[in-house]
Amino acid sequence: MNNFVYENPTKVCFGRGVISQLGEELKRLGARKIMLVYGGGSIKANGVYDAVVAQLAEHDIAVVEFAGVRGNPVLSHVRAGVELARAEQVDLICGVGGGSVVDESKAIALGAASELDVWEFFAKREVATKALPVMAILTLPATGSEMNGIAVVTNEATDQKGAIVCPGLLNPKVSFLDPETTFSLSPEQTAFACTDILSHLMESYLTTPVEQVLVQDNLLEGVAHAVMDAMAVIMKNPNDYDARAAFMWSATLAWSGICQAGVPGWGMPNHALEMPLSAVYDIAHGAGLSIIIPAWMRVTGAKHEQRILKFGERILGMDAPTTVNAVADALIAYYRSIGSPVTCTEAGIDLDVARLTDLAFVGFKQRGMNDYTKEIITAVFRQTI
Amino acid sequence: MNNFVYENPTKVCFGRGVISQLGEELKRLGARKIMLVYGGGSIKANGVYDAVVAQLAEHDIAVVEFAGVRGNPVLSHVRAGVELARAEQVDLICGVGGGSVVDESKAIALGAASELDVWEFFAKREVATKALPVMAILTLPATGSEMNGIAVVTNEATDQKGAIVCPGLLNPKVSFLDPETTFSLSPEQTAFACTDILSHLMESYLTTPVEQVLVQDNLLEGVAHAVMDAMAVIMKNPNDYDARAAFMWSATLAWSGICQAGVPGWGMPNHALEMPLSAVYDIAHGAGLSIIIPAWMRVTGAKHEQRILKFGERILGMDAPTTVNAVADALIAYYRSIGSPVTCTEAGIDLDVARLTDLAFVGFKQRGMNDYTKEIITAVFRQTI
Repeated sequence: MNNFVYENPTKVCFGRGVISQLGEELKRLGARKIMLVYGGGSIKANGVYDAVVAQLAEHDIAVVEFAGVRGNPVLSHVRAGVELARAEQVDLICGVGGGSVVDESKAIALGAASELDVWEFFAKREVATKALPVMAILTLPATGSEMNGIAVVTNEATDQKGAIVCPGLLNPKVSFLDPETTFSLSPEQTAFACTDILSHLMESYLTTPVEQVLVQDNLLEGVAHAVMDAMAVIMKNPNDYDARAAFMWSATLAWSGICQAGVPGWGMPNHALEMPLSAVYDIAHGAGLSIIIPAWMRVTGAKHEQRILKFGERILGMDAPTTVNAVADALIAYYRSIGSPVTCTEAGIDLDVARLTDLAFVGFKQRGMNDYTKEIITAVFRQTI
Repeated sequence: MNNFVYENPTKVCFGRGVISQLGEELKRLGARKIMLVYGGGSIKANGVYDAVVAQLAEHDIAVVEFAGVRGNPVLSHVRAGVELARAEQVDLICGVGGGSVVDESKAIALGAASELDVWEFFAKREVATKALPVMAILTLPATGSEMNGIAVVTNEATDQKGAIVCPGLLNPKVSFLDPETTFSLSPEQTAFACTDILSHLMESYLTTPVEQVLVQDNLLEGVAHAVMDAMAVIMKNPNDYDARAAFMWSATLAWSGICQAGVPGWGMPNHALEMPLSAVYDIAHGAGLSIIIPAWMRVTGAKHEQRILKFGERILGMDAPTTVNAVADALIAYYRSIGSPVTCTEAGIDLDVARLTDLAFVGFKQRGMNDYTKEIITAVFRQTI
């Protein structure tokens, strides 16, 4: 096991009706005027918006609304949010929605507490040291943003996705997770969420160079099985509370850091490959991942063979697989079974391999993963077509 | 899944040499004069004391030493610590040792921040609202106290163990876990630690009334397997770093709350039964647990049959067990294999069943577990002889 620091100060309020605790938690944190960040209005259809507004009114907390967050949050919208937060002098940013909304809320919280342009932090030219407090009311479990310090934003001017990782600073102070608010998610949204959650578990599981990481392997396998078992139930009955609850809590745990802390020498090649895909073609991150991961396995699998075979056996339930391609085939079969695309063609993408390669290459460099040459990256993208 | 609140603000610094970060962390928290709490001096034999003192000197932090914490911390010693902490006006309590030392550090931190006698909080007559900050440098992984808000103290005047649970307030601000500091633990200490860790996983696993708790069952099983696998390696090679690291991190996770959050309707009957045993006879808590748990299974197993059989199959690796007694037998065989006692006679205890029953009965009442009659409690204690 490697040395690590684990710190996760987010308070999670989980279960039926937890939004009723929102007002008290805001009061506890001293909030008087908050910015409510959300997306296209699904929270108005499913009753969450009304519940939130009622809490704010009941506790006499002023609110500035900022809607229109996209599935992949874009820098121009973040900048508009920062302007509004500064002008209105809000003291807390509350995101209501999925991971994109929570990510954009963090980005606004960062920008509003600084004189600098917020992209300076995502471009790694400035180090973040302060941010407004963030809260999250999660309605689409997938990214884990509700219990970590990570935010991802797309700079539309350059088609670059920038990620910032600030444990502690950007962690939501409190996150509210009510599984009933996820009953109305479409099969497609749930499938892409499932793919995203599994990808968070797979990156460290597949890329660590050691044969076994006692504790962490077990945690990763346990959460992966929980997600897949819950997904199977949800596909039959989208309103099964226990399955939706297990799915939601698994999503949070998968990317909270607890499953990865101490895993030696792992990287995130699949995220480095997927981020330009969803930045350029604006597809769901989860859909991009189910396209990328099997292709990545086939192209770079020789290096990670032992871990990929272990994944096939212990997570996909294969009977002693012997080749990387067999595991990639089984993974594709799984993605198809839940309704997530496995080729660019299926996702309606006419892939510009050269452009994607250039963008991904920059991402790998930023992550310090210098063994990913343009040749390797090109080979993976060609495999996805 | 039940509704829950999960919050665990402890920062964990884990790995080789992490004590070298102590001074910086103390400075970050603004500590100028701390109380160093420890036990019988094993930390002077294994080099930890010297490393700590060097850090304090290097960072110009004054120190008041308070040694002599017993394996089961006693109230008179806690009160002496509180007096000293008040008189010396220390601003932080730093425990160096095992769970008992960390528990006593929390109790002192609580007492020193109040005008009241510290037992008032343990007797549940007062609610704790403030405490000095606590740090932990762990050298005996077992109780999980390094990453939770729990403290247990024995009142020698009444032979009562009092437990206090203050999530957040009593969590150590920072805990330092260096697996190398556990190389020098005796086989007996390691065995009792193993029993203790497993008991933390077993209470909720065995007593929840539901057939399956997706996510939490997998987490509990995964951590239990990690502990048992690590224990097998440690018994052959006490200096195996990865096994000691897995053992240590499992101990922390097992009782950090992450494995139990959301598990429906579970209780802690085995702790309620064991606490008077180690309070009266001053045996190691882990030794008491390996005596109690199989006896508890045999006496109350009908109520928890499905979960006990599941435990036999999924954690002990039995092939489809059909009776509670078969699982109790297998558990006894496991405890014997690691060197933990399974009867009072083996532990050198001439059991006063009536007295223990009276003490345990009070504990069950305090926990609100009213279905544990004196008859049931007596039957369990008789089974342990």
